[in-house]
Parts: sequence; C-alpha cells; structure tokens
Amino acid sequence: MIAIGIDIGGTSFKGAAVDENGKVFEKFVLPVSYPHDQNEIINQLIDLTDKYIKENNFENELMGIGLGIPGSIDSVNGVCTYSNNLKWEDLHIIDMFKQRFSCPIRITNDANAAALGEAVFGAGKNHKDVVMITLGTGVGSGIICNGQIYEGLNGKGAEIGHTTLVSDGIPCTCGRRGCFEMYASATALIRQTEEAMKQNKNSLLWKVSQEQGKVNGRTAFEAEKLGDETAKKVIDQYIKYLGEGLLNICNVFRPEVILLSGGIANEKENLTKRLIPYLEKYSYGYPRSPKTEIKIAELGYESGIIGAASLILNR
Amino acid sequence: MIAIGIDIGGTSFKGAAVDENGKVFEKFVLPVSYPHDQNEIINQLIDLTDKYIKENNFENELMGIGLGIPGSIDSVNGVCTYSNNLKWEDLHIIDMFKQRFSCPIRITNDANAAALGEAVFGAGKNHKDVVMITLGTGVGSGIICNGQIYEGLNGKGAEIGHTTLVSDGIPCTCGRRGCFEMYASATALIRQTEEAMKQNKNSLLWKVSQEQGKVNGRTAFEAEKLGDETAKKVIDQYIKYLGEGLLNICNVFRPEVILLSGGIANEKENLTKRLIPYLEKYSYGYPRSPKTEIKIAELGYESGIIGAASLILNR
Repeated sequence: MIAIGIDIGGTSFKGAAVDENGKVFEKFVLPVSYPHDQNEIINQLIDLTDKYIKENNFENELMGIGLGIPGSIDSVNGVCTYSNNLKWEDLHIIDMFKQRFSCPIRITNDANAAALGEAVFGAGKNHKDVVMITLGTGVGSGIICNGQIYEGLNGKGAEIGHTTLVSDGIPCTCGRRGCFEMYASATALIRQTEEAMKQNKNSLLWKVSQEQGKVNGRTAFEAEKLGDETAKKVIDQYIKYLGEGLLNICNVFRPEVILLSGGIANEKENLTKRLIPYLEKYSYGYPRSPKTEIKIAELGYESGIIGAASLILNR
Repeated sequence: MIAIGIDIGGTSFKGAAVDENGKVFEKFVLPVSYPHDQNEIINQLIDLTDKYIKENNFENELMGIGLGIPGSIDSVNGVCTYSNNLKWEDLHIIDMFKQRFSCPIRITNDANAAALGEAVFGAGKNHKDVVMITLGTGVGSGIICNGQIYEGLNGKGAEIGHTTLVSDGIPCTCGRRGCFEMYASATALIRQTEEAMKQNKNSLLWKVSQEQGKVNGRTAFEAEKLGDETAKKVIDQYIKYLGEGLLNICNVFRPEVILLSGGIANEKENLTKRLIPYLEKYSYGYPRSPKTEIKIAELGYESGIIGAASLILNR
C-alpha cells in the first residue's frame, strides 16, 4: 500500500508515492510561477497527480493523498486560509481534490508535516511525543503529541518561534518583541555574526566570510574552528539563546525527543554536544526528571514528501 | 454512577463521590501531621475511602478512584516520584490501592487534575483544548489536549511557569533565570508592589497595605481603584508580564480557552478586561487567527475533588 505525499514549495510542488516503510518512489514536479491563479494551479496539480497514479498503476494500492503547505492551514476543513509565500487565500484544497479522488485527502502546514514524517519514519521514530524545530530564515516548529500532530484551534498553534524569550527585546515581524525566532534562527545568527564583526575588525570572521562570499549561518562555526575568540563568543551566545528556547519546550512538553532541522542543524554534533549539557543542567526537576533527547532530523530533502504522505500512512 | 475524587493537600486529604454531572456528595477528610510514614498514611486513606464507599452504599455505582497529588507524579506507573510538600518519595500509590480495590485507580499531579476538572465540569466545559494557569505562590499549569491531560515524559511536562520570559532575568528557584513564574505569580506581584512602595513613599499602597495588615496580591488592585498612580503602574507592568506569558501559550497551543485560577484570579474581570485586548493585539496571525478565550476558573474550593474524580469520569 502507498500514499501520495505532496510537498508544496514556493518554487515548485513535488510529489511521490511513499510506501508503509517510508520508501519514496519516482517523483513528479510542477514548477510554480508568479503571479498565478490559485484554483488553476491546484487543478494542474490534481491532473498531474491523477496521471502519475494511473501511469504507475497505483490505483489499487492508494491509501490517500497528503499535502504539506507553507502557510496557515485549517486542516479540519481542508482550507489554506492564507499563504504569504504562495499568495493564496481561502483556498479549499481538500474540496477540490475530492472532486477527482475518492480516497482520503489530508492537508497540514509544512512544518507539521515534516515533524510527523520524522516522528513516523525519521529521527523521531518509535517516539510518540516529538517536537521539531527548524532553524532557518525563521524558527519553525511542529508538535507531535501522542503520535498525532498538535495544531491548536483552526490549526493556528505550534508557533514556538513566536514565544517571547527576551521581554522588550528585538522587534519581531509578528508584532511582538523578543521572540525566540529573533535570537535562534539562521537569520539571527547571521545578524549576531555581523554585529560581532563590526566590533572586532581583526576577527577571523572577516576572512572566513570573504571566502564564503558573504556572512552566512556557517561563518561563525567555521571561524571558531580556526580558534577565533570573537566567533567563539558569537556561538556561545547563540547556543545560550537556542538552549533557553529548547529548555522552554522541555519544561512545557517534556517530549521524548526534540529534533533540529534547517540550515543551522547541519552543524550536527557541533550543536548537540553543547546543547545537551545545557539542557540537562537547567531542566526543571533535574536530576529527577527524565532526559529529553536532542537529535538532528534525518529525512533531509525528502522530508516534505515523506511528511505529507505520513498524514495518510500514520493512521 | 459515581467516581471517588481525592484531593491530596499538604494539611489534609479530602475525598468525595462525584457523579457524572459533577455533583459532589458528602466529603471525608483525613488530617495530615508531620513527620508521617508515607505508606502508613496511604493505608489510612485506603481504610477511610473503603469505609466511605461501604457506608454510602456506593459499591455498585463505583466507576473508579482518582487522586490529585501535589508533586512529581508518574501517572503511567502510578507512582508519586517526589513531593516536596508531603515529603514523599517513590510512593507506589496505585499498587497500594489496587490491593484493596478492584476498580480503576488513577493519579496525576494536582494542577493537571484541577485543569481536567474545569475542562470537564467547569469554565472549560465543552472545550477539548484547554490550558489552566494558577496564579498563586508560583505559576502552576495544567494542559488539556484533545480532552486528555498532557503530561509529557514520565509526567514531567506542563511546567509553563518555568519557561524563560526574561532572558537573564530574576533567578528562579528552579535554577534558571527569568521564569514566567518570577513575574506573574502572586509572590511576584507582592514583590513588585513592595518595590514600588519603597520608591514612592506617598503612594496609597502604604495606606491600603496597612489596612490589609500586610502587602498581598490584592494591595495594588485596591490602591489602583482609589486612583493611585503608583499602583496603576504596578498593575500595568504585572498585566504586561502575565499577558506575555499567556500570549506564549496562545501561540504554542492556541487552545480554545485559557483559564485563570489561584489568588490573583479573584480579581476576575479586572484581569480579563485588560488581558483580552492585549492578547488580541499581539496574537500571532491576528486578525486572521481565531480568538483564544480567557476565563476565570469556576469550580473553586471543590476543584481538587472534582478534578481527581474527572480522571475517572472523563473516560
């Protein structure tokens, strides 16, 4: 048996069949251009999906179709309420798919889908309470409670990136100040690196960033490896903020595992070896409390498709 | 049908039968003295519960027995891992009850039990996602997800009071700095009131606290009603911190309702009328996001018993 997982991205939609062991079959891709008509592009996606199923003779094995979408998703009613990336609004995706397919159709936010995929087939396998944090442009989050996605009312919860960590801190795009995202995203680390460079003209951060073309999320990690003190301070401060945010997750959810994904998570053990002692030391009730593991997500570039398919396969 | 709910407190254990409509029958009480033998006192409680059931002819109606306990509870294995209040450690409560009773026995932390009671019979009735915050000596919390208590690994989650709100802020008893509890508990409000009094010798806070005998959680609210500017600043600041913490809950859980209980919650509309606009204004995704209601818990002094009984009645 298979499910079709569709990863809706800002530049293309990617889909594939995924079997019950998480094996991903050949993919289909629909490129996206802007502006586009939101109903028309969904109809194109439906045609392409239908063709893919028929060409691969998946009709009799098909358990359902899942979609992960960047934006605000009402998964109960099957509606993309709003997507800033895609410029969609009030798009009734499930209703449209139901006109063509008789199998179950499910949608959710892309961060939720990725978290479920990791919980079912990836680094969170065999765990029922998992929180996944994506350290990219912002700080995304997906919460798996008791083996199921936790979305909150109308799918508007699970915005852990938008919790105040620094009261009266840096203004956030969401309208508040001091959100976790403003201190722990890749964007934040780049800002912290640039600030440190301005104050330390002799730091190796200058040399490393020149070699890299510009300051990015790896600059401070690379310069630290070369023994640069300024870079070490940047990383120490970043780890402290990230650690505080993860500790908040620990104390609220006490999940079995917190997974890290996104650009910064590529630092792997370089991150986890510092975060684990921080979390143990400050975890509420330590040393009587059970440890929450910190792991790096492992599904990589296929996580979107696998996550979307797991909306169906996880039932 | 009835369940027995037992509210384990630091000075006495109170129990009663509760029916499926939340009606509480006549109570039984076991006073607690210190030091006591932890196994002995549980055996006394078992004897008293057994006698109560028999005297009231509840045998045929009994669905089960639930207990709410202040401390660290492993509800899966039925163990009070540690209770600072009661001086209990590794106490296998469910095993002990099972030796006498054949009905289902369930235990949880008292804050979780109270939250479930409110979700089933109180201010959170008819809602499946509810977070309850108790503003007392500390900031307690109970999380109801999809109609069930969310406890985290080994029951060690749901410590919303111990999430950093002010990075590098006031040291907390838990070992971290800047926890929500250090800014939004009754204890915090008293500290904030006293600090303001020291800086403003002419404030009416002095007169009000003298009349009240000492500074308490009501002092600033009372002085504000008399038009005192210093008191107004204290309350505005307190509401800001409380609002920020509740907004974090909103963005993470987006529950249908957040309930407030504990001493400060007695201010009722005086709190909610200020918190509601704050939460609407800063809520993630506003105005597209659904509103999380803010309500005052309503079960009052019986909430412990009703909450404990709801561990059984909610199934």
